[in-house]
Amino acid sequence: MKKLWGNSKLNQQVEAFETKDDLVLDQRLVKYDCLGSLAHAKMLNTIGILTLEELKLLNKGLNEILKLDKKGQFQLVQGDEDIHTKIENYLTENFGEVGKKIHTGRSRNDQVLTAIRLFIKDKLTGIVSEVELLQKSFKDYSKKYSHIQMPGYTHMQKAMPSSVGLWAESFADGLTDDLKQLQTAFDIANQSPLGSGAGYGLPFDVKREFTAKLLGFAKVQENALYCQNSRGKFEASILSAFISILQTINKFAQDVLLFTTSEFGFFTVDETLTTGSSIMPQKKNIDLAELLRSKIHLVLGNYVAIVSLSANLPSGYNRDLQDSKKPLFESIEITLNSLKMSSVLLSGLYPVPVKLKAAMTNELYAAQDALKLAKKGIPFRSAYKKIASKYRR
Amino acid sequence: MKKLWGNSKLNQQVEAFETKDDLVLDQRLVKYDCLGSLAHAKMLNTIGILTLEELKLLNKGLNEILKLDKKGQFQLVQGDEDIHTKIENYLTENFGEVGKKIHTGRSRNDQVLTAIRLFIKDKLTGIVSEVELLQKSFKDYSKKYSHIQMPGYTHMQKAMPSSVGLWAESFADGLTDDLKQLQTAFDIANQSPLGSGAGYGLPFDVKREFTAKLLGFAKVQENALYCQNSRGKFEASILSAFISILQTINKFAQDVLLFTTSEFGFFTVDETLTTGSSIMPQKKNIDLAELLRSKIHLVLGNYVAIVSLSANLPSGYNRDLQDSKKPLFESIEITLNSLKMSSVLLSGLYPVPVKLKAAMTNELYAAQDALKLAKKGIPFRSAYKKIASKYRR
Amino acid sequence: MKKLWGNSKLNQQVEAFETKDDLVLDQRLVKYDCLGSLAHAKMLNTIGILTLEELKLLNKGLNEILKLDKKGQFQLVQGDEDIHTKIENYLTENFGEVGKKIHTGRSRNDQVLTAIRLFIKDKLTGIVSEVELLQKSFKDYSKKYSHIQMPGYTHMQKAMPSSVGLWAESFADGLTDDLKQLQTAFDIANQSPLGSGAGYGLPFDVKREFTAKLLGFAKVQENALYCQNSRGKFEASILSAFISILQTINKFAQDVLLFTTSEFGFFTVDETLTTGSSIMPQKKNIDLAELLRSKIHLVLGNYVAIVSLSANLPSGYNRDLQDSKKPLFESIEITLNSLKMSSVLLSGLYPVPVKLKAAMTNELYAAQDALKLAKKGIPFRSAYKKIASKYRR
Amino acid sequence: MKKLWGNSKLNQQVEAFETKDDLVLDQRLVKYDCLGSLAHAKMLNTIGILTLEELKLLNKGLNEILKLDKKGQFQLVQGDEDIHTKIENYLTENFGEVGKKIHTGRSRNDQVLTAIRLFIKDKLTGIVSEVELLQKSFKDYSKKYSHIQMPGYTHMQKAMPSSVGLWAESFADGLTDDLKQLQTAFDIANQSPLGSGAGYGLPFDVKREFTAKLLGFAKVQENALYCQNSRGKFEASILSAFISILQTINKFAQDVLLFTTSEFGFFTVDETLTTGSSIMPQKKNIDLAELLRSKIHLVLGNYVAIVSLSANLPSGYNRDLQDSKKPLFESIEITLNSLKMSSVLLSGLYPVPVKLKAAMTNELYAAQDALKLAKKGIPFRSAYKKIASKYRR
Repeated sequence: MKKLWGNSKLNQQVEAFETKDDLVLDQRLVKYDCLGSLAHAKMLNTIGILTLEELKLLNKGLNEILKLDKKGQFQLVQGDEDIHTKIENYLTENFGEVGKKIHTGRSRNDQVLTAIRLFIKDKLTGIVSEVELLQKSFKDYSKKYSHIQMPGYTHMQKAMPSSVGLWAESFADGLTDDLKQLQTAFDIANQSPLGSGAGYGLPFDVKREFTAKLLGFAKVQENALYCQNSRGKFEASILSAFISILQTINKFAQDVLLFTTSEFGFFTVDETLTTGSSIMPQKKNIDLAELLRSKIHLVLGNYVAIVSLSANLPSGYNRDLQDSKKPLFESIEITLNSLKMSSVLLSGLYPVPVKLKAAMTNELYAAQDALKLAKKGIPFRSAYKKIASKYRR
Repeated sequence: MKKLWGNSKLNQQVEAFETKDDLVLDQRLVKYDCLGSLAHAKMLNTIGILTLEELKLLNKGLNEILKLDKKGQFQLVQGDEDIHTKIENYLTENFGEVGKKIHTGRSRNDQVLTAIRLFIKDKLTGIVSEVELLQKSFKDYSKKYSHIQMPGYTHMQKAMPSSVGLWAESFADGLTDDLKQLQTAFDIANQSPLGSGAGYGLPFDVKREFTAKLLGFAKVQENALYCQNSRGKFEASILSAFISILQTINKFAQDVLLFTTSEFGFFTVDETLTTGSSIMPQKKNIDLAELLRSKIHLVLGNYVAIVSLSANLPSGYNRDLQDSKKPLFESIEITLNSLKMSSVLLSGLYPVPVKLKAAMTNELYAAQDALKLAKKGIPFRSAYKKIASKYRR
Repeated sequence: MKKLWGNSKLNQQVEAFETKDDLVLDQRLVKYDCLGSLAHAKMLNTIGILTLEELKLLNKGLNEILKLDKKGQFQLVQGDEDIHTKIENYLTENFGEVGKKIHTGRSRNDQVLTAIRLFIKDKLTGIVSEVELLQKSFKDYSKKYSHIQMPGYTHMQKAMPSSVGLWAESFADGLTDDLKQLQTAFDIANQSPLGSGAGYGLPFDVKREFTAKLLGFAKVQENALYCQNSRGKFEASILSAFISILQTINKFAQDVLLFTTSEFGFFTVDETLTTGSSIMPQKKNIDLAELLRSKIHLVLGNYVAIVSLSANLPSGYNRDLQDSKKPLFESIEITLNSLKMSSVLLSGLYPVPVKLKAAMTNELYAAQDALKLAKKGIPFRSAYKKIASKYRR
Repeated sequence: MKKLWGNSKLNQQVEAFETKDDLVLDQRLVKYDCLGSLAHAKMLNTIGILTLEELKLLNKGLNEILKLDKKGQFQLVQGDEDIHTKIENYLTENFGEVGKKIHTGRSRNDQVLTAIRLFIKDKLTGIVSEVELLQKSFKDYSKKYSHIQMPGYTHMQKAMPSSVGLWAESFADGLTDDLKQLQTAFDIANQSPLGSGAGYGLPFDVKREFTAKLLGFAKVQENALYCQNSRGKFEASILSAFISILQTINKFAQDVLLFTTSEFGFFTVDETLTTGSSIMPQKKNIDLAELLRSKIHLVLGNYVAIVSLSANLPSGYNRDLQDSKKPLFESIEITLNSLKMSSVLLSGLYPVPVKLKAAMTNELYAAQDALKLAKKGIPFRSAYKKIASKYRR
């Protein structure tokens, strides 16, 4: 397909290497690029580059694309440079000269950033909702089973009395802190890069406040070069917030797997959440928990990729940054699904009171026994030793 | 679709979470699973589980699948558990009872390992060839331009005289060491897990030597539990070899980008390998080199994911390991393509003699001047100081 | 040395493996553990476990330790279990029975967390100040050199006109966003774990609000189990904020190194910041910038270590977490020093106007030329092509 | 202290930032740098730069340093540039002019590489021995307890009958593959960089074969630039081999921790290997296993640091590479100690036959039951379903 920069002589193999995977990702940006382009067009109208008539045409065209995209009919194919080029070409082919004007006062650099930011904001909003839902589920679970005692462990050994309530609540509280990081990542991303051009501004007034407001950004990202340089940084900030969420989920999943072994037996999982074996007829495995446990590692890998690939690069756009798209998009998907699936797992997780009760053995109360003596005036360390002599030889 | 372990009550959302991405990857294993299954069937025939007639039927069935797969007509769809189940179901539906016998003396655990190992061996063989091709290209380039001097740099500052030949040869030599690691990773993976069952062997003689030989493995991986426990380890070993290759490519790409800046100007790149800008009409960017430079970071991320997700897990198969498939497959693809594209980049990279010559300024010879004095008997450190006084104030 | 849990039979080699490196780190926690212990003692007095007399003794003892520590005379040696045991032992040896009471209603688990949190809060406060100082330096630099033009780059190729001012300001703006993440990490860490015991609370009222307030925490970290489970999470959150800071510094350092090559020559660095070569008399290297560039990678490695080691672990304290101390402490040190050194580097970085002016070549204005045509009514894409024909053949 | 490149004006703070940590590491290189220098001096004698008399003086001087170092009396202090400078200065101060000649035909670049390689070769040899010892321990353990049955697990659920013998042997087999990677890393590192100068060779014949042979290298690393460019690569290759070893140890440690919970109770650990709690008198924790489990994550972090910091750098020495020293040295230490401690843990690990026997419950034999039916001619999948109906509802 026609490239914006002229008739391409670009080697076909090279083009495939550069764009093949990226086109798949770009598909998800169609909507956001149309929104960004529409805001840009409105701004161009206010500064006299586009007439009202031309603006209407572009509005019509971009809305057509939005509809086609919704129906899955605006598909990128090998040979398309990227979604941005495809949209400009569509407008030019269908609406003539006005398509050639849409890119006035804009670079693909700020255009890409704008589309990705809008995409991110949308997705993070969805993730925040899922965190809140899961948090509510943990709280409800905690209340429902607050009265059921269970052993508390340190070093994987029985330590002191705990409860199903305390256990479930610990995840709810974890998500509270995770949300703070997510909110910060969102706030940082909530700056409009539109109008920063290729990272060095533009030689006429592109009214950045105007487009920022239209697109719902909290503010303009002022320094044009920083718009480019912040790529890699913002992505990293988002992924680190995801990692925090997945740390909470990872521990939940690990606990479920440990506490549902036949040896512990503290919980059972609804059969609709279990899978069987190809060779062992007796098996009911909780693959769901295992695959929830594994997800943090994938996002950790993606974080490493993004931080590492954007390091040691000089200021200004470098194409390397394109390769941060996949780790970012994938991590969004993983985090969203993991949150949903954690709720599903929790909804099918049942305490087994008889097993939990039987597990509340004497040694769990050793510290309490020592503290009772301490309350009576025996220095704690002496009380501790007295009790310890029962357990350690 | 029917699961091997009975009529599934598995929650649909959960099933999607567990298998959606994995089915896409499994598609690439069809061929290898058929080969593994065929070897297994032949073995079952030798120990009397399958009659010759039954073996022929299975042979026919598996070959049908191979042909369908080649034509892209053996497609996994949502609801399929995995490729292994789909193949067994196909055999049963089309060839009756014999399909129900194919899994005798086998677990999906050793079956999956076998298919992945065969896949790996095939791909690594291809990668070895590409490394050798690229190495040859660097050697040829080195010879062709051995006579052209260029500045050598340390700390990004001009250091001593170098040459285009020395520079290109350094990558050829790097690939020699990379190949050693690749070979070791291949050798380690070249062990047959078939017959190890679910990680605990099987209660009858599965003739592991027989199938290992049929499938071209160098040896049987003896300990059944280690077959499972080595997952994560073998993948890591392969990816670390890829990282070594990509370290070589990364430096090549970085050098190309630095040496083709207008400020250095030591090399130009064929126009068919460059791309333009959406806003800056003058631009000819070498995106290819940038996207070659970035690839090591993606594989580093994948390596982290694999090592991290397989750590802190107890012995025996854990479903978490499924999530190592994508990082593995993706890294294979990345490495293969990066090797090919490095050859393409090198083939379009031309030294600019006039610029290189102009860059051979005096200070590059300062160490030589000091050494000349040293040869005349002046202690080197004294000679050094004498020369230094010309350059440092 | 005497362990809290009795006369140790612990294998000496094992003890060295478990504590050797950790004791060095613990040395930095003496102060914070004394502060935590003092608050705990005051609380024990309010609930009648300690008399006022006993509290005074402990106060005296802990202040003695603080003074000894300041003079470097409270040194941990091989055989000491950890700083917490050493302090309790010191109190008991020098003040008798009251030393045996200090641990009433406390576990080493919440004690360690408290000391580390106080340490973290102190260090992050110092880092915030350094970020602000560096930011001010960048802003001043930006103003001072706002009028000096320099080329702006994309894809490492000349793109559009930029300025030293825009360049320096981009780092100041980056630090603004970095500060937000740092503040969030601080806020999350600003919760008191004291009184959470071993992760399962304590069988009497430990007045957690009271100690939290005394120690300057913004709030009590309510869920006792989450106190333990948040280890690994809080550290990760802090390190991700550091990584953001170091991303800013990394790009600054990379730019300095590129722009001070003899080929670019846009800046020079004060000789007091450069080092020489052992063999090449002419060399003036900017090792400082290289070692600033490298630091993000060390902290990235530490982040991976912390996230990875705390994953796949069940709820409650696991000793693995001790190994997060070194990456955490080291990253604090690295970040603090990198901020200071970036200020030093900037203070010795001088633009070279004549070189910068010479670099402002025609092609940098190509986009502006196209935009000028666009303002005259020629559709931008047509204008672009017109201009492009001058540069691309 | 005097720098080789003249009287330093280097900012003191900057010097501390650049060298403080590095001097500590350099201390371990004294021996190897003396050995490298001695070989270089011998070579200089053969080509007429040093007289026999001068060589004898240098031999004397270097041996003095070796002795001082053994007694801990050749200590680097703040202000020393590095170990290499300190040694040259010592020779000059104590033996006059000959000290000023030792650096003839050598750069600190090849000198550093040589010392590190010799250090690496020495340490890897020690690690190989420890791997072999641990492997033997696992084999002995496997034989000793081969007859004791234990449950085999998949998905953390009981799967099929296993044995303590099979379990222990799996680690022995793992180490076999780990050794292959270690050997490859050793072989790759076994190339002499001495004589490659600053990465661009030297203007007279430095007889590289001669010094390589003297120092016990298998070959000369031919391409001078590759000598420098291989830094980062060789380190990564070594660390990836360590990670493989630590993967084996990690799984062993995780299994020990799971199988020694009171719920499983399959093994006990010698009391000399356990530690207690500060508050819970009953506790016997296996911190040793926890701290063995955690180590892979530290080395993974170090691997990321090394790969990431050496990426995106142009050819030739960059000071960033200094920061690979600490991760390398630390990882060597960790791996060596972890191997030793794994042997210690294994030596104090005792199966509990009564618990193991009780754990061999019926469902472990379900697959065997199905296979028995299969041997009688019932298709396996039908047999499976028959048996499954007993276990799954």
